[in-house]
Amino acid sequence: MSRTAEPLSQAMALLQKLEPGAPAKVQANLDAFSPGSAELVLGYAFADILGRDGLDLRTREMLTVAMLAAMGTAQSQLDFHMRAAMKTGVTREEIVEIVLQVSVYAGVPACMNAITSAKKAFQAAGAN
Amino acid sequence: MSRTAEPLSQAMALLQKLEPGAPAKVQANLDAFSPGSAELVLGYAFADILGRDGLDLRTREMLTVAMLAAMGTAQSQLDFHMRAAMKTGVTREEIVEIVLQVSVYAGVPACMNAITSAKKAFQAAGAN
Amino acid sequence: MSRTAEPLSQAMALLQKLEPGAPAKVQANLDAFSPGSAELVLGYAFADILGRDGLDLRTREMLTVAMLAAMGTAQSQLDFHMRAAMKTGVTREEIVEIVLQVSVYAGVPACMNAITSAKKAFQAAGAN
Amino acid sequence: MSRTAEPLSQAMALLQKLEPGAPAKVQANLDAFSPGSAELVLGYAFADILGRDGLDLRTREMLTVAMLAAMGTAQSQLDFHMRAAMKTGVTREEIVEIVLQVSVYAGVPACMNAITSAKKAFQAAGAN
Amino acid sequence: MSRTAEPLSQAMALLQKLEPGAPAKVQANLDAFSPGSAELVLGYAFADILGRDGLDLRTREMLTVAMLAAMGTAQSQLDFHMRAAMKTGVTREEIVEIVLQVSVYAGVPACMNAITSAKKAFQAAGAN
Amino acid sequence: MSRTAEPLSQAMALLQKLEPGAPAKVQANLDAFSPGSAELVLGYAFADILGRDGLDLRTREMLTVAMLAAMGTAQSQLDFHMRAAMKTGVTREEIVEIVLQVSVYAGVPACMNAITSAKKAFQAAGAN
Repeated sequence: MSRTAEPLSQAMALLQKLEPGAPAKVQANLDAFSPGSAELVLGYAFADILGRDGLDLRTREMLTVAMLAAMGTAQSQLDFHMRAAMKTGVTREEIVEIVLQVSVYAGVPACMNAITSAKKAFQAAGAN
Repeated sequence: MSRTAEPLSQAMALLQKLEPGAPAKVQANLDAFSPGSAELVLGYAFADILGRDGLDLRTREMLTVAMLAAMGTAQSQLDFHMRAAMKTGVTREEIVEIVLQVSVYAGVPACMNAITSAKKAFQAAGAN
Repeated sequence: MSRTAEPLSQAMALLQKLEPGAPAKVQANLDAFSPGSAELVLGYAFADILGRDGLDLRTREMLTVAMLAAMGTAQSQLDFHMRAAMKTGVTREEIVEIVLQVSVYAGVPACMNAITSAKKAFQAAGAN
Repeated sequence: MSRTAEPLSQAMALLQKLEPGAPAKVQANLDAFSPGSAELVLGYAFADILGRDGLDLRTREMLTVAMLAAMGTAQSQLDFHMRAAMKTGVTREEIVEIVLQVSVYAGVPACMNAITSAKKAFQAAGAN
Repeated sequence: MSRTAEPLSQAMALLQKLEPGAPAKVQANLDAFSPGSAELVLGYAFADILGRDGLDLRTREMLTVAMLAAMGTAQSQLDFHMRAAMKTGVTREEIVEIVLQVSVYAGVPACMNAITSAKKAFQAAGAN
Repeated sequence: MSRTAEPLSQAMALLQKLEPGAPAKVQANLDAFSPGSAELVLGYAFADILGRDGLDLRTREMLTVAMLAAMGTAQSQLDFHMRAAMKTGVTREEIVEIVLQVSVYAGVPACMNAITSAKKAFQAAGAN
């Protein structure tokens, strides 16, 4: 277990898998905030942690969707990861199960907000 | 998709899988609070939702561990589900991955509290 | 204390009291997500729990407004329950008190967001 | 609507109603932290806000119990207000309803932690 | 340490420092909710607490930005305090540091939402 | 802005400044969870982010105390950082101000829990 030697390029490669075309936008967004912040933050998130071998990306996206929905404080990231989850192979049926499970651990309003997010991802997936 | 006809007995059967011996204790705890509350609350949580077919119990426990660790408001339930996750076949290595992923979405203190909980579950599993 | 035998119809009857016309919209929204999810989630929330006798609906709506405002993670549900609270007889003066009390337990920003929500409900009630 | 002229004495009078004997302990606790902090913080909470006329104290305690249980970040204050709620006339049956309602808006773990707190208050009330 | 004798005028004086022109808007907003609520809530927040001597306003704004970003439940207040922080002399470089530090304690999504807010404040400051 | 080349040793050097003797304990704790997790998580937190130049460590600790107190989900980390803040030169008077400010943004219960934590740190500092 160790840090990746090339955090930025590895993070961007993973981000590209989750949403083709996202790396350029995310990079530009973070560069406009502070040059180097992409390497720091995304390097940690997407290369050091999410890029590890111990869990497949599909399972990781299921976990991320569940966490963001339960926390309820990052709706646009939840939207992103709903789409990303489907991109990595999480089925519509599995997302339904995750979202219903959110109601048990974080309550019905958190579940309802996740439903809104899920439906947008279903629509985006259907449109492709 | 529909509600279970026998919520209490199905909930207790699932609870027994997660932690052998737990049903009697949980039932007594909830009966002392309010007779019928076990059927209502656990019937919803463990029979109607967690007992559904769309996701296997092992994956559901991974999601629960991630959500409780990210929310950070229910340490003793996190302890329970760390043990339950291992009981359903989640490996020590997978729990390490989940806990590290918590640091990305909910921060390092949430991750550290999950580590404390995970280590207790590792010890309990090792002692069996 | 037990689960309702007809969760969906009872949930919808209560929802209709809280916001006339809401049931059809909510049902359509949840059906588009997953058929049966309305019965599961709303059956639990609005029939099994909120439909119980032990507290009148007016008091329950006051509690819901307080909880959602304090949690701060479900602004559109807070909007809904501000209106629903007034529909069940909670007065404008009582909502002012609830919202000010939120500042004590959840801080001034949570209170300010609840004020925004309350003012929309006041306006809607005035427009009727 | 205005601030109380004698915040500390009014706050302590209300605190005494909620838990006889508490004012001396709370005052000592806050004085040891910073002289004057009791007047500032408790003056706002218990005199300016909770001491207002628009809602009776019994209803206010129901709201407080619901908020603290839903937030899940202040277990010892929840314990205090469970006892205080009963002292102001909230019945055991009403507390059961509030706690079950918490499961809808904040999830089952929040509800379970509130049950633990409620049972301690029931026991304390029974012992008197 | 004691409460301010003229809470409303002192609160508004401080608010004017944080965002010139804000007092009139905030006063009108709160008056439309409930006359007197401005004195109560802002008197506590901006006069009794933030107006105290023990910390300079610049440091207080840094703390507020960090807290709001970490909690993630009050995006528009975060926007306000990002601008206010810069108005009190917090530099763009310091805001970058605060926002990155948020990722450690509250996770990457909280950090990303703070970046969105910070960039709006940078732009507003640049436009002046 | 870039990642540190020797994350673990730099993280431990900073941790030693915050609490002499802590590195060995923290390292042992994390090694027992998963070898390498100290480098990953602490390398990010304490070397890449907190070890950056843009803010002095004393200010960073003030921010951390404010965030942890406002979030209310990591009491033992709050205890640690209360002590660490004092070790880096934050005065008792400044901690009082931070803690009172928490009441404005996160409510009185969060403030009261921070007071409990602060008093332990005051006592520990007095005992040295």
